[in-house]
Amino acid sequence: MELLKQKILKDARVIGEDILKVDNFLNHQLDIELLNELGKEFYQIFKDEAVTKILTIEASGIAISAIAAQYFKVPVVFAKKVASRNLDAETYESDVFSFTKQTTYRIRVSKKYIQKEDRVLILDDFLAKGKALQGLAHIIEEAGATLVGSGIVIEKAFQDGGKVLREQGMRVESLAKVKKMENGIVIFE
Amino acid sequence: MELLKQKILKDARVIGEDILKVDNFLNHQLDIELLNELGKEFYQIFKDEAVTKILTIEASGIAISAIAAQYFKVPVVFAKKVASRNLDAETYESDVFSFTKQTTYRIRVSKKYIQKEDRVLILDDFLAKGKALQGLAHIIEEAGATLVGSGIVIEKAFQDGGKVLREQGMRVESLAKVKKMENGIVIFE
Repeated sequence: MELLKQKILKDARVIGEDILKVDNFLNHQLDIELLNELGKEFYQIFKDEAVTKILTIEASGIAISAIAAQYFKVPVVFAKKVASRNLDAETYESDVFSFTKQTTYRIRVSKKYIQKEDRVLILDDFLAKGKALQGLAHIIEEAGATLVGSGIVIEKAFQDGGKVLREQGMRVESLAKVKKMENGIVIFE
Repeated sequence: MELLKQKILKDARVIGEDILKVDNFLNHQLDIELLNELGKEFYQIFKDEAVTKILTIEASGIAISAIAAQYFKVPVVFAKKVASRNLDAETYESDVFSFTKQTTYRIRVSKKYIQKEDRVLILDDFLAKGKALQGLAHIIEEAGATLVGSGIVIEKAFQDGGKVLREQGMRVESLAKVKKMENGIVIFE
């Protein structure tokens, strides 16, 4: 998606060879106008899939999911990362290793909010090693629901998450695919 | 706000005398159509305040803030709860005690995203003891920016956060004020 690529080239910062900081528009400060265009694009891509629910993961997947959901006219469910007194005891769970934080965390979704009949679209801000997507897909499978695919804002295509998930048969659609980052420059596929 | 009160009466669950579970529409599963109405309402309340930025806190404040920001046409910044390798070193920080989780956590906002000239509106899903709002207000103060007020979806008016903050001079506008909860029933002010 050209608009997103231009935004990345203009406002993202590359640190080393693997960190792409987009916290001025995507995951700390949110450029709502841009998110709106991304949400519309996800709708264009998945509009024929009869999506009944969008599933994402806290915290940085929530904004794009909420905005996109306006076009799909479906609820969003976000997986929670920590056990909370207020979360329902009856949950689907999955363990996710975060390479960014070098730690494994547990994600949880209340069983009430994903039903067997649901056609679920996963949305998230980043795809790198694919562990978060795998965890979410696992939860959808546990629920007996249908995963129609995953919409990703930025895929780090130089890591193997996207490749592995596509080989496993998941439909993964990324709005920007980063081929590599070198000397502070982002090169798209 | 009548629509919200009806939704609470219909879909929220009361546990004991102080837990109000709204995870089927506000903070786990998100009713995007409802959030849109809440966002419009916040805009009606604060539209003359020349807001330049909406500040919230991850995770459950993000969705309502992103949706409301479409009406204000301003960016959202969400305070992060944990230190992260990808967060900028230059941050404003504040410590917040969570009565729900019985723990103190640190919230952080990159200094780049709140400027002295900013007129900041805080939005959040709940107000109880007011610790999160105080932490966010502290960050705005540190930045030398102007806090125009706080918009809250549900205020637990039987706890003292709203009272204390209003006495301190903060404009706090809550879309639903819960006076008390007893025998599983929510009673509004």
